[in-house]
Amino acid sequence: MQSAINLAARGLGLTWPNPAVGCVIVRDDKVIARGWTQPGGRPHAESEALRRAGKKAGGSTVYVTLEPCAHQGTTPPCAKALIDANVRRVVIGIKDPDPRVNGAGIKMLQEAGILVDVGIEKNDAKLITGGFVKRQLEGRPLITLKLATSLDGRIACHSGDSKWVTGEIARKSGHLLRANHDGILVGAITAARDNPTLTCRLPGMLDSSPIRIIVDGGMRLPETNNLVVDAKKIPTWIFIIKKRTSENRKKAYANAGVEIIEIDSDEEGNPNLLKVVTFLGSRGLTRVLVEGGGVIAAALLKLGLVDEIFWYRASKIIGGDGLPAIGGLGIEKMRSAQCLEKISFDYVGDDIVERYRLVI
Amino acid sequence: MQSAINLAARGLGLTWPNPAVGCVIVRDDKVIARGWTQPGGRPHAESEALRRAGKKAGGSTVYVTLEPCAHQGTTPPCAKALIDANVRRVVIGIKDPDPRVNGAGIKMLQEAGILVDVGIEKNDAKLITGGFVKRQLEGRPLITLKLATSLDGRIACHSGDSKWVTGEIARKSGHLLRANHDGILVGAITAARDNPTLTCRLPGMLDSSPIRIIVDGGMRLPETNNLVVDAKKIPTWIFIIKKRTSENRKKAYANAGVEIIEIDSDEEGNPNLLKVVTFLGSRGLTRVLVEGGGVIAAALLKLGLVDEIFWYRASKIIGGDGLPAIGGLGIEKMRSAQCLEKISFDYVGDDIVERYRLVI
Repeated sequence: MQSAINLAARGLGLTWPNPAVGCVIVRDDKVIARGWTQPGGRPHAESEALRRAGKKAGGSTVYVTLEPCAHQGTTPPCAKALIDANVRRVVIGIKDPDPRVNGAGIKMLQEAGILVDVGIEKNDAKLITGGFVKRQLEGRPLITLKLATSLDGRIACHSGDSKWVTGEIARKSGHLLRANHDGILVGAITAARDNPTLTCRLPGMLDSSPIRIIVDGGMRLPETNNLVVDAKKIPTWIFIIKKRTSENRKKAYANAGVEIIEIDSDEEGNPNLLKVVTFLGSRGLTRVLVEGGGVIAAALLKLGLVDEIFWYRASKIIGGDGLPAIGGLGIEKMRSAQCLEKISFDYVGDDIVERYRLVI
Repeated sequence: MQSAINLAARGLGLTWPNPAVGCVIVRDDKVIARGWTQPGGRPHAESEALRRAGKKAGGSTVYVTLEPCAHQGTTPPCAKALIDANVRRVVIGIKDPDPRVNGAGIKMLQEAGILVDVGIEKNDAKLITGGFVKRQLEGRPLITLKLATSLDGRIACHSGDSKWVTGEIARKSGHLLRANHDGILVGAITAARDNPTLTCRLPGMLDSSPIRIIVDGGMRLPETNNLVVDAKKIPTWIFIIKKRTSENRKKAYANAGVEIIEIDSDEEGNPNLLKVVTFLGSRGLTRVLVEGGGVIAAALLKLGLVDEIFWYRASKIIGGDGLPAIGGLGIEKMRSAQCLEKISFDYVGDDIVERYRLVI
């Protein structure tokens, strides 16, 4: 199953709105085929693995990270393909919450006399399928905050200089994180100040760049910003507040290839972030990476909309006048502080990266 | 030698102005005696170990973290004691920078025909003897900053509530840190706000509490503060600025048993911290723990007076409106940020503690 989970990871960021699934077929104690969801979401992992196994699949055990689908889509259901291939046993990481599946795939397999085990390595299977599950259950993508800070939690000097907090290897690791997300979201202040491209610049991986999403209630982003300029190459969506739009700038954005999405403001006159993420879910995004700045990170945290944090940390100190990674949260009592659970820890060059899950 | 270093650690905080040294005597591949510097700095580690070894010391190999002393003090020099005991070989961690020793102990041993090796496990020997060496070479104690922060580098909520950032086990570990330092230093703001006792409150270890040092230029600390009230039980030194003294408060402090030290101000009218630490060195302190707040931590960092940091970190987020662990440093460019080198990493309950050395 761990091998299937690793295969699933190959599809992250490329398969939305479909889940990235991994599949390993074993017969006589030997792996006879592997498969994973292909870019665009099809073929599914099981079809890929069965195709590679061919006739050898008969009598085999199939490990798959997510319950095989039971519904006729563009392709026949995977559960049927497994039955047709005469497999003996199917080991499943987690059930598929998609209302069209939700146990129906398991039932179909069992009724055909196939042995089925569910919940094997379920924690890791859940982690790899988290974006898809979140969208199915809550209609919004899984939201991961990426932070790159000093030991004292700063992302830039008080002068605004932010190049670079972490070293080259950590930054490359951050680009890989971009590649395995469907969308990347930043606030207007960060977009205007840093003029980033938000693409995956690892060799040969530009095509794996996520959809670029900017929340810019007041349309502060100049037309000359990198995110606007090359919007025809990399899809770029800008959320603006209804009735607070400059028609000229809207036209300039549109001409540059930017998709403009008008949303309501919240009670404080800022973009309604719940509507933003719900919209992203409606467009099929399952995994969105938030790359700052501190204001939008704080706003999402306050709304309970951050699911995970990847925290890159350099062994340096910037001081209390530096820019905080996370803006004010208005927490009055220490016991009300937002608690996190560490999922993993790694060295990346001279820096470290910690992955956290938010504890509700 | 690692065993000797561990024995040396038993003396930290108790032996100043003398170094905390560890000694292990081995004969025929067996440890025949151990010794470490006793509270108050005497007997020395070598005398302790030789006393326990008795006549068996003849022909043995002696591992000692610091070069044996060569000068006649209250007790005869350790180098002479080793010669008199007929040891065969002495393995030394680091040379003693004390001008009265500084190679003379090694020379005395060699001239008596004893084999001497120097520099074995020298990094760890340096780490355990760092306070003593710093005072010998620079006339000031080793200064260690202790921080207990959230992931985003905050020590309290914006309301001031700071109980507690880290869990019970981390706080106990912090008390152990107090015990192995000679002095504990805080700024007046922290002393007034938190009204701390700054003692070691681990069972049976109150006597290991360090000298309490408060830098309070403007004499802001009320007479009712815990640090003043029980100054007769635990030595307490308050640094005030010359000519900016309230005679009444001075009298109250003195009556309570506080030692008042008048120092000059720096160019900005704050207490001259270089003079503070030099004074601490002149009084024999070799290891001083700084427990906040952010203003004094920043001031010491700016002056290059912080040697190490023990950073306790809880898996929680407080937000940018919380109190920063380190005040403003006025760093303009990311490449000027203060770099640190990680010495160690440990889990303490649900929290972690990292030990850093400052990179110049």
